[in-house]
Amino acid sequence: MPYELYYWPGIQGRGEFVRLALEDAGADYVDVARHEGGMSAMMRMMENTTHPSFAPPFLKDGDLVIGQTAAILLYLGARLGLAPKDPTGGLWTQQIQLTIADLVAEAHDTHHPIAVSLYYEDQKNEALRRAEDFRKERIPKFLGWFETVLARNPAGDAHLVGATVTYADLSLFQVVEGLSYAFPQAMKRALGRFPRVAALHKAVAVRPRIRAYLNSERRIPFNQEGIFRHYPELDG
Amino acid sequence: MPYELYYWPGIQGRGEFVRLALEDAGADYVDVARHEGGMSAMMRMMENTTHPSFAPPFLKDGDLVIGQTAAILLYLGARLGLAPKDPTGGLWTQQIQLTIADLVAEAHDTHHPIAVSLYYEDQKNEALRRAEDFRKERIPKFLGWFETVLARNPAGDAHLVGATVTYADLSLFQVVEGLSYAFPQAMKRALGRFPRVAALHKAVAVRPRIRAYLNSERRIPFNQEGIFRHYPELDG
Repeated sequence: MPYELYYWPGIQGRGEFVRLALEDAGADYVDVARHEGGMSAMMRMMENTTHPSFAPPFLKDGDLVIGQTAAILLYLGARLGLAPKDPTGGLWTQQIQLTIADLVAEAHDTHHPIAVSLYYEDQKNEALRRAEDFRKERIPKFLGWFETVLARNPAGDAHLVGATVTYADLSLFQVVEGLSYAFPQAMKRALGRFPRVAALHKAVAVRPRIRAYLNSERRIPFNQEGIFRHYPELDG
Repeated sequence: MPYELYYWPGIQGRGEFVRLALEDAGADYVDVARHEGGMSAMMRMMENTTHPSFAPPFLKDGDLVIGQTAAILLYLGARLGLAPKDPTGGLWTQQIQLTIADLVAEAHDTHHPIAVSLYYEDQKNEALRRAEDFRKERIPKFLGWFETVLARNPAGDAHLVGATVTYADLSLFQVVEGLSYAFPQAMKRALGRFPRVAALHKAVAVRPRIRAYLNSERRIPFNQEGIFRHYPELDG
């Protein structure tokens, strides 16, 4: 039975971290809300289950329904061969993923620093201030941390954890991709300072299944509805 | 060997979610940074380990070092009897914890909507706008979700997961406690609408070890340095 992924059909958003794991593993899955009737199926799942998710994405695997991006990846990682099997390595991978999740939330808030219920235009002045701090302080702090994690990996600096790709590597690729779309100038500068992060980003992009996915129609282009949005004024 | 918790010594902050789990379980632990030399020990641990944490809290258990509040609780939950042993229940508990973490991050950003590196006074106008949305939209949305989770728990509405207390229950207690400190008026109204959340909060507060902890000097009082801060103007 294929995995069923439930996520907003028009954006990469947080669902993309799950999509990349499923795609890289060549897993059989259905992106439910992108099919006819899928949006109502998603809404029913949020209304009527014993384990409702606060928000998409969530994943259904047989009877199991699980939400929160990092928890979905915790579950999938072991099954898809995208996380170490030993508990210490598994926890470390999850810890990195949770730090990526923090960065994603901060990236979102650069264009919505006041309220998700308001338009960007209604919080643009605040966004200009927040984005400046994000570019100058937060991007270097987060990317610097990933660089350190790569540099200290006893198995080599090509991966965040161990000697093979994990869901954390795929997610770091996605964050770099998204930030480069949203803040092209700031990211060009930042990636020059963090060569291991830049190299990981490039290496993931050419993994055969990831490359095929990125070139397919399954990959939704970045747009101004998602987490990563390109407002030139926020790039400084 | 006692668990070693590393966290900023002057605030409850995110460390408090770990402290409550350790305290409720009667676990043997050292709150390292609150002891002499502890702050430099914490800084060394962040600088020199193979698995550095992006930020405190982190926990040391023998050779294992683990950061990110939810990941620490994932690790401790199984060991302290504060999470179901079955994988589905364990994942569900973690999913709820991650949603609590999202709420905690949003609560923080009510007083720091622009930058953690700036004083509250330098982002007060933005804070007034963000806090209004947080009180009116986000608190009811999150508490309403917890209320639904309690109502749908097949084992009864006294706990979020199963028939006994989990780390998610303890964390929900702490969030309600913190929000009630920060937004006393808004929370008084909200808790009236979500009786199960209010009842869980009261029930956790009188658990013998939690009550003893809350009355001890180990419990740091809420203050204006932590995540939950009381600025009357932000309470509307």
